[in-house]
Amino acid sequence: MRQNSEKIVIIGAGFGGLHVARRLAKSEHQVLVIDCHNYHLFQPLLYQVAVGDLESNAIASPLRPLLRAPNIRFHWGCVEKIDWNENKIHCTDGIEISWDKLILSFGTVTNFFGNKEIAENALHLKNIEAAEHVQSRIIAALEKASSSVSEEEQRRLLHFVIAGGGPTGVEFCGALLELLRIIIPRDYPELSHSTYQVTLVQGGDALLPGFDEKLQKKAYEKLQNLGADILLGKHADGFDGKTVRLGDVQIPAATLIWTAGVTAHPLIHQIPGKKMHNGRIPVDQHCRLIDHANVYVIGDLAYGENQDKVWPQVAPFAVQSAEHVAKHITSGKKSDHLSPFIYKDPGSMAVLKAFDGVCQIPRYHLQLTGLPAWLLWLFVHLYGIIGGRNRILALLDWGADYIRHNAAVTLIREDKNK
Amino acid sequence: MRQNSEKIVIIGAGFGGLHVARRLAKSEHQVLVIDCHNYHLFQPLLYQVAVGDLESNAIASPLRPLLRAPNIRFHWGCVEKIDWNENKIHCTDGIEISWDKLILSFGTVTNFFGNKEIAENALHLKNIEAAEHVQSRIIAALEKASSSVSEEEQRRLLHFVIAGGGPTGVEFCGALLELLRIIIPRDYPELSHSTYQVTLVQGGDALLPGFDEKLQKKAYEKLQNLGADILLGKHADGFDGKTVRLGDVQIPAATLIWTAGVTAHPLIHQIPGKKMHNGRIPVDQHCRLIDHANVYVIGDLAYGENQDKVWPQVAPFAVQSAEHVAKHITSGKKSDHLSPFIYKDPGSMAVLKAFDGVCQIPRYHLQLTGLPAWLLWLFVHLYGIIGGRNRILALLDWGADYIRHNAAVTLIREDKNK
Repeated sequence: MRQNSEKIVIIGAGFGGLHVARRLAKSEHQVLVIDCHNYHLFQPLLYQVAVGDLESNAIASPLRPLLRAPNIRFHWGCVEKIDWNENKIHCTDGIEISWDKLILSFGTVTNFFGNKEIAENALHLKNIEAAEHVQSRIIAALEKASSSVSEEEQRRLLHFVIAGGGPTGVEFCGALLELLRIIIPRDYPELSHSTYQVTLVQGGDALLPGFDEKLQKKAYEKLQNLGADILLGKHADGFDGKTVRLGDVQIPAATLIWTAGVTAHPLIHQIPGKKMHNGRIPVDQHCRLIDHANVYVIGDLAYGENQDKVWPQVAPFAVQSAEHVAKHITSGKKSDHLSPFIYKDPGSMAVLKAFDGVCQIPRYHLQLTGLPAWLLWLFVHLYGIIGGRNRILALLDWGADYIRHNAAVTLIREDKNK
Repeated sequence: MRQNSEKIVIIGAGFGGLHVARRLAKSEHQVLVIDCHNYHLFQPLLYQVAVGDLESNAIASPLRPLLRAPNIRFHWGCVEKIDWNENKIHCTDGIEISWDKLILSFGTVTNFFGNKEIAENALHLKNIEAAEHVQSRIIAALEKASSSVSEEEQRRLLHFVIAGGGPTGVEFCGALLELLRIIIPRDYPELSHSTYQVTLVQGGDALLPGFDEKLQKKAYEKLQNLGADILLGKHADGFDGKTVRLGDVQIPAATLIWTAGVTAHPLIHQIPGKKMHNGRIPVDQHCRLIDHANVYVIGDLAYGENQDKVWPQVAPFAVQSAEHVAKHITSGKKSDHLSPFIYKDPGSMAVLKAFDGVCQIPRYHLQLTGLPAWLLWLFVHLYGIIGGRNRILALLDWGADYIRHNAAVTLIREDKNK
């Protein structure tokens, strides 16, 4: 071990954890990355797996090849308990890991806001299994509808409700409408006389919170033109698998996809100190846990503000906070003189359908809609997908989908008997 | 309905069922295909999914696009009961389907020969979920071994036993050895001092039954050179998840992959009349169920002989029997004059590793080994994979794998906590 070498343990290999580890490659420190999965997931494109536009392999990259460096090790494991007195992590498989510096990047899970009925019956979009399950359920609904003799049941099966009007809900809504528009007349001629329906429920008074009002309206109009029913200022508060309830209103629908919020991963209960809204952890100017100078918090978990704007829970923030933390660690004794972390908003974007989207880049006072926004989206996401093979795979899938209107994946991965 | 139109119902959309349906497209008959899955599976390549050389999407093709014809319909359903008095099928979802002619092509499942312990603890290679599960288990074993402190446990985790020396077992054995040879030094440097082991257990006295003796020996030698332990004349008769038992011999191994036999799908109990070995159904010269002129049996289920050779349970047989049955059906009244079905053996092949295989084509008294055999294998399988997109996907995966030694898929699709 070199003189200043420390043992840096990173919990979670999402955008934050992966980037901080890679920045620490070839440093003097020993780095250990822990994750429950053996792959990094490009989460912003999970909704495309859900509509069959992408296959999950295109957005999941095995971690070991990504972390190939003499000073980095990987442990496939789930953290059960963090011992703050001994600076030790206990994994569920019995392995104990000690650290000199700890980086918390275990991110978030879907937030059902304590509604057990919805948690049990709704689908979500936070991991591969969930997204593949949504895809199976959509196709299974079409199959069931096509052999159903009851018109009421058919309408119920062909009604999809999406809760949450953020980027995930909006993008999924557009992509789902496109899938149904193409696949029903082509593969389900027996359903061509029936009407399918997609309802997007948003609690706030506009879609895409945080976007400029003009873009919010644009997104609203475009989704409506695609055929979406958009309900603003409403909350889905119940779903028994057959009917979605919004207060007094009842929507007969067999599928509810929940994109209405995230909250810190349950491991948050192992972290001492104050928590903010949805379990986020307030940090100091170098993304350190308050009163724990050797513990960093990055990505969706970190709570802070720059110029009175709360940090967003998005991939660019995770990457920037990871880069700052890596810099802070490698600066050693000079780290005290490092300027505080400031989040630079690179902009926001949402794709609405093939060749169409909205995008804002505040730094240049730029707003794009339509094809230019979509092209920028394509470039950014293709660049973001890790690994040449996965990029080719994504291009191939998108090419088939956007040009030939041929969804990549429409396999039902569930047993018919269940 | 046209004058001579009959309702033809096909149970199972494997090679046989799919081909007979497609041959009946644009005929005067109404065709209904029933399958528990909504996709056709290119089963001979499942072992490649198991070693991460191919992604499952490359060998699974959604059925509806394949069956797009005005006279063909598809029902995603599982058959529960066949009513032979009323000529009706009852599905598990309550749907009832009547037929004028019935085609049985529901194929086989893995045969554990009644050994419950093995059925419970061993893995198999008969469907997508099973193959992906094998893939997850292999990678999970490497992960577990890399964090194990017990050398004995490590050896157990790194020992893989394959039961069955037919083409699937042989091909899987070669591919697994190649995967381990590449992935361990590259991604698991902590295991580079340990020895992994692959044992292939074959009940008979040679690998690849049915192949010429020279090719059998070639395959044996080549697998042995790759590092396989080959046990001939042995049977795995027990496996508790930790130790594989072969009579008195005990092999400490955490993974047993069972490729040692198939038997008719349980639906066979709904079929009247005599059954042969492993539930196969003896048929007449036009692949009809004895005493049921309106019921055909094709593919793995059909039992018959040509020139004293029992029909093999392979894809080419399924396709040829499907073609004959389609011809018999479309011939109408002239069908009595149709020549009896004769199976023409197009040859057998097995790939052993990249750029290497064995192949025999009896019609031309031709035997190939090495690169020529492998090239022929590549051509035949690429041709057999259905759909341009899937072919490109397979080529892309194989390219990455064979040329860059980069396995396509090494995701662990299971929860670490389980």
